[in-house]
Order: sequence, then C-alpha cells, then structure tokens
Amino acid sequence: MKDFKKGLEGIIALETEISYIDGVKGILEYRGYRIEQLAKLSFVSIIHLLLHGKLPTIREHDQFSNMLKERRELDVHTKEVIHFYNFNIEAMDALMTAISHLSHSDPDLNSNSHEENISKAIRLIAKAPTAVAYFQRIHEDKEIIKPNELLPHSSNFLYMLRGEIPTVLEAKILNVDFILSAEHELNASTFAVRVTASTLSDIHSAIISGIGTLKGVLHGGARLAVMNMLDEIGDPKKTEKYVMNLIKNKQRIMGFGHRVYKVVDPRADIFRDLAKKLAEEKKDMKWYEMATKIEEVVTRELVEKQGKTIYMNVDFYSGVIYKYLDIPPKLATAIFALGRITGWLAHALEQYKDNRLIRPRAKYIGDHHTPE
Amino acid sequence: MKDFKKGLEGIIALETEISYIDGVKGILEYRGYRIEQLAKLSFVSIIHLLLHGKLPTIREHDQFSNMLKERRELDVHTKEVIHFYNFNIEAMDALMTAISHLSHSDPDLNSNSHEENISKAIRLIAKAPTAVAYFQRIHEDKEIIKPNELLPHSSNFLYMLRGEIPTVLEAKILNVDFILSAEHELNASTFAVRVTASTLSDIHSAIISGIGTLKGVLHGGARLAVMNMLDEIGDPKKTEKYVMNLIKNKQRIMGFGHRVYKVVDPRADIFRDLAKKLAEEKKDMKWYEMATKIEEVVTRELVEKQGKTIYMNVDFYSGVIYKYLDIPPKLATAIFALGRITGWLAHALEQYKDNRLIRPRAKYIGDHHTPE
Repeated sequence: MKDFKKGLEGIIALETEISYIDGVKGILEYRGYRIEQLAKLSFVSIIHLLLHGKLPTIREHDQFSNMLKERRELDVHTKEVIHFYNFNIEAMDALMTAISHLSHSDPDLNSNSHEENISKAIRLIAKAPTAVAYFQRIHEDKEIIKPNELLPHSSNFLYMLRGEIPTVLEAKILNVDFILSAEHELNASTFAVRVTASTLSDIHSAIISGIGTLKGVLHGGARLAVMNMLDEIGDPKKTEKYVMNLIKNKQRIMGFGHRVYKVVDPRADIFRDLAKKLAEEKKDMKWYEMATKIEEVVTRELVEKQGKTIYMNVDFYSGVIYKYLDIPPKLATAIFALGRITGWLAHALEQYKDNRLIRPRAKYIGDHHTPE
Repeated sequence: MKDFKKGLEGIIALETEISYIDGVKGILEYRGYRIEQLAKLSFVSIIHLLLHGKLPTIREHDQFSNMLKERRELDVHTKEVIHFYNFNIEAMDALMTAISHLSHSDPDLNSNSHEENISKAIRLIAKAPTAVAYFQRIHEDKEIIKPNELLPHSSNFLYMLRGEIPTVLEAKILNVDFILSAEHELNASTFAVRVTASTLSDIHSAIISGIGTLKGVLHGGARLAVMNMLDEIGDPKKTEKYVMNLIKNKQRIMGFGHRVYKVVDPRADIFRDLAKKLAEEKKDMKWYEMATKIEEVVTRELVEKQGKTIYMNVDFYSGVIYKYLDIPPKLATAIFALGRITGWLAHALEQYKDNRLIRPRAKYIGDHHTPE
C-alpha cells in the first residue's frame, strides 16, 4: 500500500455543492455566494440557502422563519432532564446530551428519507438554542425563559439566555456570528458528521458526532480558549509581554493559524469590524484593544520577522465579541455549534443523497506475534 | 487538486499498532495476535491487550478484572434519567444518551492526559453494559438488577439483562462475541472516533461519535437487520425462496459483503461454529438451519454462478447467536458496541499520543454566483 498524508492534509475526501474555499486568495462561498455578501442577510436566509440550495424569496423567508419559530420549544422529557445535569460541564456537553435525548421523541428518528430529514433538520436548528439557554438559566438558578415568537432566531437566543431583549447591534452581531459559523467545507466536525451519516445512521447521531468533534481545542474549542486568554491577560497594557512570552516558549497562540487559509480568514475581517462597533456601543475598548494588540504582535514577530503564514482565524474576534455580549466562556463552543449545526445538517443531507460508506484503511506498523 | 476515491476506499488515513487486516488472505490480528487465538481468551485479556498493548499476566488479569468489576455501577443521575427515556428507541440511542450523561459526572472530563484517559476508558467499558441492561429492564417494567461482582464481564451482562445466571456455553459465546466485535482497524465508527479525538476533544465525545456511526445499517446496524431478516423468513423451508427473491430484485442481503475482506471474514467462521453449538444446546436448529441455507444460496447464486466476491461477514452469524441468546433485536447494535467500545478507546488513546487534526478537503462542484 502506498504512503499517506497525516491528518489527511490536502486529500480530497468527497465532492460537495455546499461550500467553496480558496485558502490562498482568502475566498469563502456558501453555495456559490461570497461570505461578505451573505453576512448582510438574516441567518434564516442562510439556513434556507444551506438546506435547500437557494436563497429564499421574501415569502419563503417568512414561511421558513415561522416554521423555525414554532419548533423552538423542547419536549417535556428533554426539558425536565436538564435539571439532572451536572453544572460543571460546558454548555457543549449539555447540548450533546440534550440532542441525544431529543432524538428519543423525534417522530422520524430512524427514517432517512429526504423530506423527513429536512423536517428533522429544521427541528434541530430551532431547538438547539433553547437547549443551551435552558441549561444556562437552570445552572444560574434562574427561571427559564420560553422562546419568544416575536423575536428572530439570534435575538430570541440572547433573550432566552439573558431575560432581556438585546440591542439592535447585539442582535445583528449574533446574527452575523451564526452566519459566519454556519459552514466551512470539510472541517473536522463536518467530516465526522459525514462519516457517521455514511453508515446510514440517523441525522441526530450525525449531528452529535459534529458536536463532540467541534468541542476540541484544535477546532471550535478555540473560541473558549481565546476568551480564557483575554481573561488571563486582563489588561491591554499587559498584552505585548504576554504574547511575547508565548512566542518565546513556542506556545500556541489561540485564534491564530488555519489548516486551509494561507492568508487572513475572510470571516475574521468581518468579525474585527463588528467587534469594534460593539466596543464603541458598549463604551469599553478594553477587549478590542487587547485583540488588536495581539494581532499586531503576532504579525510583527511571526509573519514579518519569521516569515510564517500564521494569521488570525474566525475564532479570534468571535471570542472578543462574546466578551462584549457578556457570554460566559463555558457557552462559547456551544454558540459556535448553534451556527455550525446548519452546515452539518446540509452535509448530512448531501451525504445521504449519494452515499458511499466512508471507510479508509490504516497502515499497520506493529509487530506480528503469530507465525504465518 | 487531484482526483479522489469515493468513501476513501483503499486510502490510508493513518498508521496504527492496534490491528492488522489482510483482506485477501482473511487474516485479522489485534496487536499482532491472530483472532483465532484471541477468541480462546477472556474478554478482560483482550481489553488489557488493546488498551495497554500487551496480554496481561495472571496477576495483572485479576487486578484488571477487579478494577472493571468495581466500576460497573452508574452514578445516581445517569441511572435516574433512564426512567425518562422514550422506550421506542433502540438500546443504541439509550447507550448514547447514557454515556453523554455519564460524562457529566466524570471527574476528569476535560483532561486528556494518558493516565486519566486510561481511567476513563476502564470506567466506560465497565459501565456501558450496565447502561444497556438497565435501559432494557426499565423498558420491560422489571426491577433493575445490579451488577454482580462474582460474575465476569459477559456473564454479568447477561445476568443484569435477564435476571438469571447464564449457562456456561451462553457466557462463553457472549465472551467470544465481545472479543470478535472489539476491534477492526479503521472501520467507519473507529475512524469517526479518531476524527473526534483529533481535535483534542474528550474521550467521551470520541466514543459517542463511534456509537452514532456504528448504528447505521451499513455498519453495526447490520446485526439488527440480520435478526429482522431471520424473523421475517420465520421458517427454514421458506429460506430458499426468500433469498432468491432478494437476489432477483438485486436487494442487499444483510450480513454479506465487506469493504475489506475479499474472502470469508475470519470472525464469521468462528461465529458459525459457536452458533451450531448453541443450537445444539438449545435443541433448536431452526435459526442455524436458516442461516446455513442463506449462506448456501448466496454462495451458489452470487459467488459460483455470477463470480462475485460476496461472503458472509461478522454480522451474519452473530445475528443468529443473538436469536439463540434470546436478545431482543433492538439491543443487537448496542451489544456490538459493548465489544467495539474497547477498540474505539484504544484508537482514541493512540490518536491522542501522536495527534494531527484529521481535516481533509472537499472538491467543490457547484456554481459560483458572485463574480470574481
């Protein structure tokens, strides 16, 4: 057998019509539309685009939005059982258990027809934010806040989480966060989703593989790590020294570097602008200043002096934004998942449509103890 | 970008010291020992071999066995919450939710040191059978039966499930079933486990990806499908006609065919002998006769007449064995998981040891709507 690429780096595993990345030019498209254009739309439009392959008309948008709104509440068992959770866990672990439990009451659990999978997808996207918000409210020993049908997807999530209607800018920014987090080709969690779907397992199982995979610090867990880093630095004046220290000790700088992008992640640029606006609205430049300083030091030391291609990625300024939205760090990865679940579902649907079991080989490098 | 192999067929994704398959010669080895030799040992020896890389001494075997016995009971929350499950689900869905819930109380949930992961692995192997048995007992509205420390791993599982100490042959056969199911190189579920672990997510998340992936009918779900097929045929005399009909309509015959083996799966031969012994003990040849008849018709029609390389796989006679052990079909895939969890854990540990994020690429074949 021939040689192999560790981590399957650069290996094409499958064909897709869902997203396109040019990592050298810094281009990201969902279904052929540039991310910069899509970031101006509503998250509901993006869900429609990813699941159905096209942007909705105004009429379709309203219908689709209503369908999501009507499906936000959890079934009584899943809801009840959240009280039994251990609250030392991350919201990500809670989301995984809740979706696993949600599957029990799914009317179509073991059916894999396209229509039923679309219905399941819509239910999952609608209910996942509710599970995260309920978990956090119960954890904080506060009353849970039921979904509000007057509010769109992202505003409603912040409302259920905090008990207050968010400002226009806050809602807009979380909407953009969900859009930018929604999809990114064959990242590790999406790949895990497709491996699971490729055995013709059910879509809940596929999504749960995605959640477990996104959780790792080399993937979605990086946002939590960025937030922890910002907290640890604590003061913009201490930033330079902190980052220089990481570089000296050759430690990973959270929120920098990407397997695919060899330039700045196009999503990161959008996030930087939003972080600045949010800092200005909050009249608190602290986190934004720390972030731009980190970026400055990394660029100066690693890119300019050492010639490395290490740029900030999507997790960097989204971590900053979560600080301004007052989101507890243990919710960071779960909120990433509330965006990415849409891409996962689109990929699961695509996998079922023209399935082939994903089953590579391993090269054995151990000993043989039994004689031939 | 160059071309690709659908389903990553024949592509080497990584190196391993855990198992070796020669699909042409029909050889399977765990850690360099032939499966035919290993099938004579205790499952506890195999767990030790897979996790620690070597067979235990007699002293190590006893210590290891005691460690597993002491860890069988579930924590009070996970146990309590099983009463809230919907009992239309497969035991596989219950096992997933239970392990997700178990993670909440794991003292080392987000630590990934090798020592802590070994502890987590032992806890998971010990507790998983308890979760499946409790689910089934509660579902049947019977009292749950606590683990019995006098009984070894497989006997104890059958005891918790049925409330009676199993016969020597029954216990022996389930022991072999766990051994043969324990590990099989980079099958889809094990690959999913490694993708999840490769983001440095926790080991519970990795195992849950394995469970969700094994569930599909193109993977572990095939055992359930074999049991359903046997029930559907119902009578050995109807077998010939049933199989001929499947062949005529070009339908999949459950329990036949494998991505890697081009000859009879070496595990299937072992299972066939055991199925025969069990049929004789039970003085009921019905299921065994049906199975040998199916095998005969498939060999005659597809292999001899059409020249196809389609042989029975591990799921075929294990489905037969489960019929004789009186295991409800909805438990079949979960029992497969109770064996395979050991291989999954060994692969997760190997992935963490020399990690590289598993992140392939996709080839975009859609349109571009935004001008360059």
